Amino acid sequence: MVQYLSPRLDASFAALSDATRRGVLEQLGRGDASITELAEKFQMTLTGMKKHVAVLEQAGLVTTRKIGRVRTCQLGPRRLEEETAWLESYRQRWDERFDELDRVVEELTRKEKSDDSRNR
Amino acid sequence: MVQYLSPRLDASFAALSDATRRGVLEQLGRGDASITELAEKFQMTLTGMKKHVAVLEQAGLVTTRKIGRVRTCQLGPRRLEEETAWLESYRQRWDERFDELDRVVEELTRKEKSDDSRNR
Repeated sequence: MVQYLSPRLDASFAALSDATRRGVLEQLGRGDASITELAEKFQMTLTGMKKHVAVLEQAGLVTTRKIGRVRTCQLGPRRLEEETAWLESYRQRWDERFDELDRVVEELTRKEKSDDSRNR
Repeated sequence: MVQYLSPRLDASFAALSDATRRGVLEQLGRGDASITELAEKFQMTLTGMKKHVAVLEQAGLVTTRKIGRVRTCQLGPRRLEEETAWLESYRQRWDERFDELDRVVEELTRKEKSDDSRNR
């Protein structure tokens, strides 16, 4: 099972919890972009966009390089493998848990029906 | 493509960005538990655990019911399908993007080698 105690998961899920940051990742998936281009695209101040990019950079989801006065962003090294594994493992447990509850309900219904017919 | 502008994704990724909350979800995947049991398990005050459960409840990841004085928690209706779809779509873009960069580097290397041999 994937360990829930992972500071990496904390950082990446927090980075993904903002619509603009998810949008920036989608945008960089189409091609590298400067902070200025991203700020324009998402109708945001440069300062605001810089903050979002910093959060993504700290989570390893974006890398930036500065050439002259332009800072260009590209997708970072992290492919969200650990995050996907956690979600998959959770969904599996979820399915098992609800299957189990279904079985309990079925069992109770069957028992009720047999009690009913005995009391008739 | 999955829309990045989803308040549901904001809430669920924020809920998942805390190790204790991920731990609570893993725990509830094994069986329902009261707030008191969860607080003990994660060595936390009742107030602290109530706050975590409220965040999970708001994100649809946990449901609670109160019987007498005990509030019991169980996994909520959300199976994290939208979240998984977003991650999968992101990883696909990530792969495509890095394949593209690989091709560019390969192209440049080939060009450099052919220039080298011409200049020799």
